[in-house]
Amino acid sequence: MTETDDMRVCFFGDSFTAGTGDDTALGWVGRAVADVRQRGVDLTAYNLGVRGETSIDIARRWNAEAGPRLPEGIRAGLVFSFGVNDCVTGVAGQMRVPVHQTIETAQSIFADAARAGWPVLMIGPPRCFEATLDLRIAALTDVLAPVCAEFDIPFLPLFHRMPDAASREGGIWQQECADGDGIHPNAGGYAMIARIVTGWDAWGAMFG
Amino acid sequence: MTETDDMRVCFFGDSFTAGTGDDTALGWVGRAVADVRQRGVDLTAYNLGVRGETSIDIARRWNAEAGPRLPEGIRAGLVFSFGVNDCVTGVAGQMRVPVHQTIETAQSIFADAARAGWPVLMIGPPRCFEATLDLRIAALTDVLAPVCAEFDIPFLPLFHRMPDAASREGGIWQQECADGDGIHPNAGGYAMIARIVTGWDAWGAMFG
Repeated sequence: MTETDDMRVCFFGDSFTAGTGDDTALGWVGRAVADVRQRGVDLTAYNLGVRGETSIDIARRWNAEAGPRLPEGIRAGLVFSFGVNDCVTGVAGQMRVPVHQTIETAQSIFADAARAGWPVLMIGPPRCFEATLDLRIAALTDVLAPVCAEFDIPFLPLFHRMPDAASREGGIWQQECADGDGIHPNAGGYAMIARIVTGWDAWGAMFG
Repeated sequence: MTETDDMRVCFFGDSFTAGTGDDTALGWVGRAVADVRQRGVDLTAYNLGVRGETSIDIARRWNAEAGPRLPEGIRAGLVFSFGVNDCVTGVAGQMRVPVHQTIETAQSIFADAARAGWPVLMIGPPRCFEATLDLRIAALTDVLAPVCAEFDIPFLPLFHRMPDAASREGGIWQQECADGDGIHPNAGGYAMIARIVTGWDAWGAMFG
């Protein structure tokens, strides 16, 4: 690491942001952050992913948790990633958060983040390799894109960048899920997400 | 990882808990957690270390942040580590938090944590290899021990377990600080803390 300006970034999301199931304890955030640091940026990352959370849960806490972590006068940024838990089937068989409410919640999060003045990235929910759920995640990805555009927030459609079930990488993800809790991958799956994020131009621009 | 009960642990502390300066993005928490997972415990760790925070800062936020991360009915735990920033010199040359106030704050944190019913560990502040600061950290370590005992909370006197400046490991720490921001080590220093924590019997018992 060479000496540059200190930068602090908060990552808000669900279990996929937290890196649940990764035996290396890195998740995609740890891998992507290590890559940035090894390129010479003195980045402090705060991983604030929480298992099981929907967009609404994240909207409720992100501002309070960002406060003590991003003091004034320091170069800072925010990365959001949510949507899988919104799409999961709730008690009465419907989605835990209906699409229109995810949109409203995302708008409220992005409006508050824009007011705070920090640069913001949004990373769409990952593919989960479960047919019905994936249809919902794909649809949510496509409605989140214009919401982000509305706020000039770069959006990574992670779902569409991820390999499908028939590919070698898709197979690794599915095998790791099967060996784990059935939902979360292990090191291989998180390394795949990290490569997609690291190769995204908006990610590189945030640390440029 | 073999299948066992899912366990979730929140780590509250300052930059040394956050792993500031570690180019691998693991810090001691990531390393110690990876070790636990590789022993077959399905541990989800939430690293809630925040740079610059004193015991008072941590007391202010820990309960609100633990809430969404430790849902009822799930096996959970708390690990605290604070004290270095209490000992740092503030504006008028005195310690940022006087010792009696660190004690009161620790008592209030531990009393609340005990009420919540989660198992708690306390890891004392690390050695910083700076003569005046280290005298204060050593003294604070020795007053924190009986406070923890009062609440039956296992306490790791990290300061006294760390090698001194003349040792090879102490030299690595100091060299990493000099190559970094002058205060935080890199991968070698954090690996050293992880080894001390991992070898602590109370740590092993939490995941037994």
